[in-house]
Amino acid sequence: MSDFNYGGTEEESAEIKKLNVEVLEDPDNFENWEKLVRATETLEGGLNRNSSPQAIATTRDAYDRFLAKFPLLFGYWKKYADLEFSIAGTEAAEMVFERGIASIATSVDLWTDYCSFKVETSHDPDVIRELFERGAACVGLDFLAHPFWDKYLEFEDRLEAHDRIFAILGRVVKIPMHQYARYFERFRQMAHTRPLEELLPADILAQFTQEVIAENAGYQAAPKDKLAIEREVRTKVDNYHLEIFTRTQTETTKRWTYESEVKRPYFHVTELDHAQLANWRKYLDFEEVDGDYARAVFLYERCLVTCAFYDEFWFRYARWMSAQDGKQEEVRNIYQRASTIFVPISRPGIRLQYAYFEEMCERIDVARDIHQAILDRLPGHVETVVSWANLERRQNGLDAAIEVYKNQIDNPSIDLFAKAAYVAEWAFLLWRIKSSVDEARQVFQKNQQWYLQSRHFWVKYLEFELAQPTSLEKEAEHYTRIRQIYNEMIQTSRMTYATKKDVSNIYLSYLQQRGTKEAMKEFLQIDKELNGPASIQSTVFKAPVGKGLENGSAPGEIDEATLRKGEVQYSMYFAQHGELPPTAQGLVAFH
Amino acid sequence: MSDFNYGGTEEESAEIKKLNVEVLEDPDNFENWEKLVRATETLEGGLNRNSSPQAIATTRDAYDRFLAKFPLLFGYWKKYADLEFSIAGTEAAEMVFERGIASIATSVDLWTDYCSFKVETSHDPDVIRELFERGAACVGLDFLAHPFWDKYLEFEDRLEAHDRIFAILGRVVKIPMHQYARYFERFRQMAHTRPLEELLPADILAQFTQEVIAENAGYQAAPKDKLAIEREVRTKVDNYHLEIFTRTQTETTKRWTYESEVKRPYFHVTELDHAQLANWRKYLDFEEVDGDYARAVFLYERCLVTCAFYDEFWFRYARWMSAQDGKQEEVRNIYQRASTIFVPISRPGIRLQYAYFEEMCERIDVARDIHQAILDRLPGHVETVVSWANLERRQNGLDAAIEVYKNQIDNPSIDLFAKAAYVAEWAFLLWRIKSSVDEARQVFQKNQQWYLQSRHFWVKYLEFELAQPTSLEKEAEHYTRIRQIYNEMIQTSRMTYATKKDVSNIYLSYLQQRGTKEAMKEFLQIDKELNGPASIQSTVFKAPVGKGLENGSAPGEIDEATLRKGEVQYSMYFAQHGELPPTAQGLVAFH
Repeated sequence: MSDFNYGGTEEESAEIKKLNVEVLEDPDNFENWEKLVRATETLEGGLNRNSSPQAIATTRDAYDRFLAKFPLLFGYWKKYADLEFSIAGTEAAEMVFERGIASIATSVDLWTDYCSFKVETSHDPDVIRELFERGAACVGLDFLAHPFWDKYLEFEDRLEAHDRIFAILGRVVKIPMHQYARYFERFRQMAHTRPLEELLPADILAQFTQEVIAENAGYQAAPKDKLAIEREVRTKVDNYHLEIFTRTQTETTKRWTYESEVKRPYFHVTELDHAQLANWRKYLDFEEVDGDYARAVFLYERCLVTCAFYDEFWFRYARWMSAQDGKQEEVRNIYQRASTIFVPISRPGIRLQYAYFEEMCERIDVARDIHQAILDRLPGHVETVVSWANLERRQNGLDAAIEVYKNQIDNPSIDLFAKAAYVAEWAFLLWRIKSSVDEARQVFQKNQQWYLQSRHFWVKYLEFELAQPTSLEKEAEHYTRIRQIYNEMIQTSRMTYATKKDVSNIYLSYLQQRGTKEAMKEFLQIDKELNGPASIQSTVFKAPVGKGLENGSAPGEIDEATLRKGEVQYSMYFAQHGELPPTAQGLVAFH
Repeated sequence: MSDFNYGGTEEESAEIKKLNVEVLEDPDNFENWEKLVRATETLEGGLNRNSSPQAIATTRDAYDRFLAKFPLLFGYWKKYADLEFSIAGTEAAEMVFERGIASIATSVDLWTDYCSFKVETSHDPDVIRELFERGAACVGLDFLAHPFWDKYLEFEDRLEAHDRIFAILGRVVKIPMHQYARYFERFRQMAHTRPLEELLPADILAQFTQEVIAENAGYQAAPKDKLAIEREVRTKVDNYHLEIFTRTQTETTKRWTYESEVKRPYFHVTELDHAQLANWRKYLDFEEVDGDYARAVFLYERCLVTCAFYDEFWFRYARWMSAQDGKQEEVRNIYQRASTIFVPISRPGIRLQYAYFEEMCERIDVARDIHQAILDRLPGHVETVVSWANLERRQNGLDAAIEVYKNQIDNPSIDLFAKAAYVAEWAFLLWRIKSSVDEARQVFQKNQQWYLQSRHFWVKYLEFELAQPTSLEKEAEHYTRIRQIYNEMIQTSRMTYATKKDVSNIYLSYLQQRGTKEAMKEFLQIDKELNGPASIQSTVFKAPVGKGLENGSAPGEIDEATLRKGEVQYSMYFAQHGELPPTAQGLVAFH
């Protein structure tokens, strides 16, 4: 498509093409995306309704892909909507706003912009009100929701709909907000001018009136006139409102400490520091206990705009939600959003847990598809393959599980070190599940030649043989077998000194715990050759790469990268989530 | 012994008594020892031959105990010798000097002092020479040996024994030393005045003479006279000496880099920094390869004066020595010195390795005694007990090993958490060595009630059951057993959240790898209660101490110290010796 025109001059079109390529090459690079979008907007001296169809198509395409990748950038939804307005008018812009709030429903700014737009472009107050009400449901509880509420009140002001204004204020004064006091003042003033019926629920009003009459009944004087009674009732109402104010004030103060610590309330692609994450954790702890379900959910949603890339909060949200009654769909929805849009693929844990969730719901095919989806992006990812094999084992039995490993092992594109892990797991199944030690041993023996550089393979192989029970009679045979594996590891494998030392320590412990009368001779021999100074250290322990790095790689030597790969140790995602020290400083990585 | 008099006034005696108590209470405290020694010396206005017998006895006793504890403090040996000289005269002083050089044979200062003392107190040059020669053998190779050699030369100067002086210089000029140049100059000058026969070995001299005669034979002139020939021979000799000088210079330069980095050549009780240890390592690497056996040994001995408290260098010395031919006694000697005098008991590893060495030499009783000796100072030390049990197993079989554990478990003074480890090891023996799974299981089951707070016990118990093979038929029974252990751990044990999480992860992995169709329901249930936020976390996972700390320990709660004890994880000394990062900074702990 070299001669395809993206709109604008040859140069402009070429530039767009270049930026498109860059974005495709590195889709996580935010700067590239920004450049592309900016370039498209400025095509043909700035996009407008007279721009060429190509330029318009190019710009829309850029925005669509950009916002599909970063749906939480409310500012760009706004810009996109404005652009559509200038190109294609009201309805097109409205479509964009709708897509925007569907993507980031908790954005006070976006809702405020959308409603202002509606106010300016629609002539039907009810339609506008309907939108304001949708917004109120989405962002009304926000601690900084005042721009939205102000916009709503301003709209009703223009219509001089005092009853509605008072009704809105009646709702707002109950919400803990940064500007709660301002709204209450207006509410209280307005209360004097509103008919009693509007001021509070009928039953309470009736009650107050009764009280006043009762209080006055005692007097010998003539019964008070209606006005006098109303005055006294209004005093009660005013006190009643002041109670609301105090409640709201208390709730606001409680949240103030956390809110004042939120340094970045919006989404951005850059990392956050430990203090920020800690504050969100504390805030969520508080709202889960102190607030109601709605407030907790709303806070989670806000937190997951700022912390969208941190799987910790997605895990937490899913776990918390699953502890609420009858929220299975909500849980599924959380897992889906985390897995499909937000959490980097480099942290596949939440996706695996999503799969377990679906398996629990007896949707085995979905669980399988999730595993497949991870592997599409992380071919041969060991934890995922093992998880998949165990899914098959649980649901369809041993052979189905082994099938998963075999497929991976037969796949030529899969990394050799990952295969080493599959082989070990395969043998593990034969040994533990099928109780066939011989078959398991054969798997290790037959495959050893391929995985000489895999620490994981050797450790598992040793663990397997060490785990075999012995008796005094069988001890010798057992020893011969284990020593042979150890010697082969030392002689044939090319791993770093540190790794060989690790594996050797397993063998040294074995000599202590299972070895015979003679064992300590061998123990001290190995100790000397392994732990002794360079001048007496056995060459089999010298790093195969060390020299290679200095005087050029000799044949049979092995490059640093391969060495590192061979040392990988695999762990379960749920075992990784270690508590961070409260003193931790600096930025927290997403990956 | 309250009325016992240590000498001096009541006050002085009381002071000595007090300081003695302090030293006994904290024998590793160097300052206390110094105070005691200073106090004794100053008894009765300063010790001398007229001091009271008690004062003298007190002082000797203090010095003897002090130097038995810190034998490498050459300065105090010197002071002690001077003191004895002033109290009891020459022979007594000499005895102290002899004890001193026996304790720290590599001290140039002490040898120099001793020899000076001898020069002043003896009238028999041969006796004095004999001592100088002993000193030369011990410290002559030291890079800073010049004070000693100067003293030796000065002695021979006074006797005007020019032949001996020249002979000494002939030895010194071959040693790489800080002041090598100075000695060579004198050597070369002196060479002019010494008879040819003294200048170099007879054979080389004869060779040189032959060469000169041969070179002159060509001339038609009359044969040169004797003098002329000698002149030419002396020129050759001078060149020959210059070659020696160049060799010594080269060797000195090689060592200069390391020597200049040695910030503390003497012993002290304070720690050294990483840079110092690194320099000693490099220096030893160099001397092992570049020097001969004698030089390497001498450097190790020097290093182990400065680094006496670091077991790393004792291990290294023993390993290096054991790689030399026929040095078994030397190796034993190294292990003995390390184990009995220098390495803190807090690092018993070298003592264990000493025991393995003796076991290797078939001195089983000695190996056993070494274990016993460690336990005298570290009652119930787990690694030592396990090592001992395995020693018995290797040499005397299963029952002897189990006996070791039983004795420890029956010992009421042994820490409960150590016993938890013995029980696990005991079960391990029954399982692995005797192949009796049932007996092993019984050991775990019967003892569980005692070790509820031991992480180690639960982990081993779970590992044991997890390691039992299953088949699809036996899977259910297997599962029931493991789930029961897990539940009991969670319900009955009071351990920190982090610990219960660790152990839970073992169970979660089990559910993945061995669980049935239903397993993921349980998996996610535990995940929620374990990893969920505080508001939904199950109370069984809350730290049993956390609240206790705030509002006073409730009954059934457990103190912080016990919690920590329960979390200990045991490791083998030989697996601990991790390589330090070359970038490491600051002081290195002894313990």
